[in-house]
Amino acid sequence: MQDGHATTTSPGSTSPGELLRLLRDGQARTRAELATETGLARSTVRSRLDALMDAGLVSDWGNDATTGGRPASRFVFNASARVALAAEVGATHATVAVTDLTGEPLASETLTLDIADGPDAVLGLLTETWRRMRSEHAITAPVAGAGIGLPGPVEHSTGKPTHPPIMPGWNGYDVPARVHTEFPVSVLVDNEVNLMALGEHARCFPTEQNMIFVKVATGIGSGLISNGQLHRGDVGAAGDLGHILAPSAGEVPCRCGNSGCLEAVASGPAVAAKLRTAGIEAQTSTDVVSLVHGGNLTAGQQVRQAGRDIGEVLAAVVSLFNPSLIVVGGQLAQAGEMLLAGVRESIYRRSLPLATEHLRIVPSQAGANAGVLGAAAMVVRHALSPMVLDRELV
Amino acid sequence: MQDGHATTTSPGSTSPGELLRLLRDGQARTRAELATETGLARSTVRSRLDALMDAGLVSDWGNDATTGGRPASRFVFNASARVALAAEVGATHATVAVTDLTGEPLASETLTLDIADGPDAVLGLLTETWRRMRSEHAITAPVAGAGIGLPGPVEHSTGKPTHPPIMPGWNGYDVPARVHTEFPVSVLVDNEVNLMALGEHARCFPTEQNMIFVKVATGIGSGLISNGQLHRGDVGAAGDLGHILAPSAGEVPCRCGNSGCLEAVASGPAVAAKLRTAGIEAQTSTDVVSLVHGGNLTAGQQVRQAGRDIGEVLAAVVSLFNPSLIVVGGQLAQAGEMLLAGVRESIYRRSLPLATEHLRIVPSQAGANAGVLGAAAMVVRHALSPMVLDRELV
Repeated sequence: MQDGHATTTSPGSTSPGELLRLLRDGQARTRAELATETGLARSTVRSRLDALMDAGLVSDWGNDATTGGRPASRFVFNASARVALAAEVGATHATVAVTDLTGEPLASETLTLDIADGPDAVLGLLTETWRRMRSEHAITAPVAGAGIGLPGPVEHSTGKPTHPPIMPGWNGYDVPARVHTEFPVSVLVDNEVNLMALGEHARCFPTEQNMIFVKVATGIGSGLISNGQLHRGDVGAAGDLGHILAPSAGEVPCRCGNSGCLEAVASGPAVAAKLRTAGIEAQTSTDVVSLVHGGNLTAGQQVRQAGRDIGEVLAAVVSLFNPSLIVVGGQLAQAGEMLLAGVRESIYRRSLPLATEHLRIVPSQAGANAGVLGAAAMVVRHALSPMVLDRELV
Repeated sequence: MQDGHATTTSPGSTSPGELLRLLRDGQARTRAELATETGLARSTVRSRLDALMDAGLVSDWGNDATTGGRPASRFVFNASARVALAAEVGATHATVAVTDLTGEPLASETLTLDIADGPDAVLGLLTETWRRMRSEHAITAPVAGAGIGLPGPVEHSTGKPTHPPIMPGWNGYDVPARVHTEFPVSVLVDNEVNLMALGEHARCFPTEQNMIFVKVATGIGSGLISNGQLHRGDVGAAGDLGHILAPSAGEVPCRCGNSGCLEAVASGPAVAAKLRTAGIEAQTSTDVVSLVHGGNLTAGQQVRQAGRDIGEVLAAVVSLFNPSLIVVGGQLAQAGEMLLAGVRESIYRRSLPLATEHLRIVPSQAGANAGVLGAAAMVVRHALSPMVLDRELV
């Protein structure tokens, strides 16, 4: 009894890209082994391996003398053949990295910036940093592609931000075209929360099929993995938890123009506002986290209540999506167990037993690097997908 | 700029199953064309076609004399080579069908039953009906598999119901094993709402990548299509809208033991209960629909309010899932535009503009047949998937 919906590749082609996919497991294989595994003619295996070796993606691993006859060459995936350029851009900073084809960073740093300086300045800073990092770390491998996470909705198919609320000057801006002026490679752009979900999935929880990453900071958003793939939704707007009606929010006005949104009661600034009402000075998520870590009881109580409010909305998400794992990250999550305890409390109270039987609710594992690791994973998956690679190797 | 996550098949094998997938587009091809399209050696194409023809899944379509040389045989998918047995079981009836390998019914009928008679009696009735239908319609093609939809949660990987609330005697029952005593074929079992979603998707909206099917009847449930695939969730419990907190439900108790659930205010029986409070006799969804069609104003108003309540929960779903299409079906949806108008009203009020820009909200197209068509589509996809077919053709 197995699911018949798992295979979606185009039919009938064991292309060079498909051959590489086989080799990406890290095992070395002879031509004969590859012919047997694929059913391809020997001559076809030979020509496809030649194309992959010309591109540097496969190396000759030496001879296999075990079969007794003439030693046969064995071939292996070369993960250092190219690099991915990756960046996660926030409102006030960016994490920038250059990784190999397993997504492992070869170099990484964090920059200070202001997203309101606009796309030309910010993207110029990214490309300049990638260029400098490659030079400083003597990285000479060709660039497979660039991946950028942005703090707002992005139309993934075009790489253009769509009405991002905190990014003046970015609406509809052609991000790939700007990066192309410096790096003529594939440029993939996505919402940073989607990439944080992808980073957690690819690097920390690769076997989970249905999981949700929740970011609690200035805003509240999430990224969904469905059947092992990122679920972006129709226009890349999936995962928007922040503007779902929170049962406890009543008529609290939200910056989106509606009222009663989760973000209006449970984001970092919303918790800070509640603390100010109680005479405690706080403005940001970081302020709140400092108060909690300093033992401030009211701050701890308010963070726990924010967790409960988030959990009320996540209970609906659990009923709808039935994930096996919820990963909670973002600045306010650095308050630790206080937030998670509130989240768990509401989810277990409001969900049917079946949906929570195997559910795990854990803090972020990739932490501040989740987004940039997700950006690299996105680039590697794209660049090495048969669809893209086969076009390149023609 | 394209998504690199679309291909998930196992690498490197252009197997008989992959070859058949190519032919399922209905186009006839020569061996030479298949060799060119796949990169397979001619001898490999020949042996794989032989295996598919031995199984009856491919037919010789006649000669292609257009190339001027010796006429070459052309080969085509034979959709009548096998049949799928399909059934959707409800609390009081079942729709049973035998279909070809495109999912098209060759025979279909509706039975009266009582799910509380238990699995042995109900499944015995299904197998007896399939057997009789094949005989009466002189259907001699071998059976590719059986697909059954049940009105409760099902562990899809084992085919066992898990704590179904309205199915006494079914919890943990091995449905496939019971069907195997009559038909020794693959037996796939799923929740009926998942299969209704699959039926609407496969037959009416095959190009939609992200859609939701909502069933409003005695209960309220949904089936989700993510990236073109059914999203079942971790234990097959995804899509459970009925027990999400409805903002307008207050403290209304629900049969699940919690209070404030959507089902407690917007299901067919919940609307009927409200009508009785207003002195109007009604018990079921069908009673309510009859009153609406008869022009009863109060019934119309209450159905519209149920639509609004459902829409409040669906607004959260739209924010989370960002579907391009919501299909509304089930008995109460037969009240027509009254229900849909309420749904649309709440969704547009509570959602961010980006998520509703391209959203369509439409009534069910497959109607009462959605579930059984989905059961057939599930069987066909499974039976013809390379993973399954290649094992069979060895």
